[in-house]
Amino acid sequence: MAPPLALTLGEPAGIGPEIVLLAWRARAAAGLPAFCAVGDPDLLCRRAAALGLDVPVVACTASEAEELFEHALPVHPNGVAATAAPGHPDESSAPSVLQSLEQAVHLVRAGIASALVTAPLAKSVLYRADFPFPGHTEYLAAQCAAPGTLAPRPVMMIWSPLLAVVPATIHVPLAEVPRLVTVELLVETGRIVARDMRDRFGIAKPRLAFAGLNPHAGEKGALGAEDEAVVRPAVDALRDAGIDARGPLPADTLFHPEARATYDVAIGMYHDQVLIPAKTLAFHDGVNVTLGLPFVRTSPDHGTAFDIAGTGKADPSSLIAALKLARRLSTADAAARAPERAGA
Amino acid sequence: MAPPLALTLGEPAGIGPEIVLLAWRARAAAGLPAFCAVGDPDLLCRRAAALGLDVPVVACTASEAEELFEHALPVHPNGVAATAAPGHPDESSAPSVLQSLEQAVHLVRAGIASALVTAPLAKSVLYRADFPFPGHTEYLAAQCAAPGTLAPRPVMMIWSPLLAVVPATIHVPLAEVPRLVTVELLVETGRIVARDMRDRFGIAKPRLAFAGLNPHAGEKGALGAEDEAVVRPAVDALRDAGIDARGPLPADTLFHPEARATYDVAIGMYHDQVLIPAKTLAFHDGVNVTLGLPFVRTSPDHGTAFDIAGTGKADPSSLIAALKLARRLSTADAAARAPERAGA
Repeated sequence: MAPPLALTLGEPAGIGPEIVLLAWRARAAAGLPAFCAVGDPDLLCRRAAALGLDVPVVACTASEAEELFEHALPVHPNGVAATAAPGHPDESSAPSVLQSLEQAVHLVRAGIASALVTAPLAKSVLYRADFPFPGHTEYLAAQCAAPGTLAPRPVMMIWSPLLAVVPATIHVPLAEVPRLVTVELLVETGRIVARDMRDRFGIAKPRLAFAGLNPHAGEKGALGAEDEAVVRPAVDALRDAGIDARGPLPADTLFHPEARATYDVAIGMYHDQVLIPAKTLAFHDGVNVTLGLPFVRTSPDHGTAFDIAGTGKADPSSLIAALKLARRLSTADAAARAPERAGA
Repeated sequence: MAPPLALTLGEPAGIGPEIVLLAWRARAAAGLPAFCAVGDPDLLCRRAAALGLDVPVVACTASEAEELFEHALPVHPNGVAATAAPGHPDESSAPSVLQSLEQAVHLVRAGIASALVTAPLAKSVLYRADFPFPGHTEYLAAQCAAPGTLAPRPVMMIWSPLLAVVPATIHVPLAEVPRLVTVELLVETGRIVARDMRDRFGIAKPRLAFAGLNPHAGEKGALGAEDEAVVRPAVDALRDAGIDARGPLPADTLFHPEARATYDVAIGMYHDQVLIPAKTLAFHDGVNVTLGLPFVRTSPDHGTAFDIAGTGKADPSSLIAALKLARRLSTADAAARAPERAGA
């Protein structure tokens, strides 16, 4: 039996704690793998009581979670109380949030948990507490760096059964995108995606489709030089390395059903180019997957939703999808790494 | 009874002539309004014979088309032969293509036809014949300018029953978009869209949703200044003018079903931002509608497809949708203009 998943509660004032409660209640109907929350058990008890949710919360160690999971929501206490009320974030939550994340990473790296699933953070809360990373993902990458080594480059994928996409650039102004998209960036992204699609998604020869930067993929330069000068050489370099890459392809005709059948993952040049089709096709059950880390990490593809936190309106579908995908990917990953370990 | 639609054949070497033949054959099943092709009747006869399509072609005037339509494909001869073979464009076609377009515009402006539907052109063919316009749409706008006046500003919309979108900028490199998106452009676009949504789509108080330029609509400036500096003032100006406009809205969450239910048309800042969701949701039956002209014009939202021209694989769905929408819009437009005329 694989160890349980480690699940952080995210921002205490957001919908994180309640979607964790709702996911646990859906464990049988949704066929969820066992997970162990990492955080403040009292926060979960209070939120369950406020919402009238009948969820027994049990403090335990992660290694006890598997056997407790059927009858109670297991929580590995992080030792730091989180007291912010729903919808009212304040920076007093930062230590609890970070401690939860750090412990969850430790559990996964130590093999006590099999993968990391994270509920949404509020970056503004962490920034006020001098959090020195742009976001969740960069923090995780830094946690993975051995002393004196560079952090691995994390790659964000949005996955649903209909479509998997990766933006080569993410949270940057559109005007900066043409400068930031380089051959090196695309080749490195393509290599990480191809490796993790093979080892974690179990696709022996993953097919990567690169969208062009410009409309109609630049029409041979008539609508912008970057597609021929940057995207095509990157695709060629990946093909030379034995990776099944294609592009630059016109982005507007890349996401209808017949087109989607021709690739396993679409790599776009910027946020909206791939997040638009991903969220158009799978708004409620998309999963954010971080590729490139030494362990599997997934998260719901929505935010803290302060506007509905504590109202009972939160939808756990994306978290449920994230938990199921984390189990699938970590099982495949363990199998892919077994020969490595056997050989080592 | 409204006059017939005027339908140009587009590029002779493309799939235009054959989708015209296929649309006529589908006239009863698809419930098509009568249309009159404008072009070289011999081209249609040759293409029908080559494809083994049983389509009687009858040369006639546009005013005779209505009564002939049930039994034969009516063609208003443009007097210029088009001889290019399928898949082999050559510039000898340019005079026939342009003559067909000019005559079709004349028929519509004279009230002999009720709207213009155009099959796809090959711009490269026209450029080699010194065509001085960037495309079809700009040519039509210039045709509409009275002597000594400015041409109207045409606005491209991609319409399907699931989603109507307008890109504020179209065929330009992505790097130029931030500079080209101005308050003036967005306000003018919004006014034209609101007017034509009312008069032609019959929506009394159309709801316009403006996508932000940057990811997450710029996150209050953190991810780019343009959304607060340009998009928001444009939306405010439109609201001050009594138009139901909203934005800037994050583009990635603007196109799932619940979001689409909140507006009648989404206005994006650049080509891929709105063409991606439009073609993801309606790849085969999207219609390109030109707003802002003094008459209704629609066209299929695909190109000449030289690779399949003459093979019998062309799909007339988008042309059929364009013909049906042209009839709907021109009927509403005539009704909206009737009081104007009565008062004049």
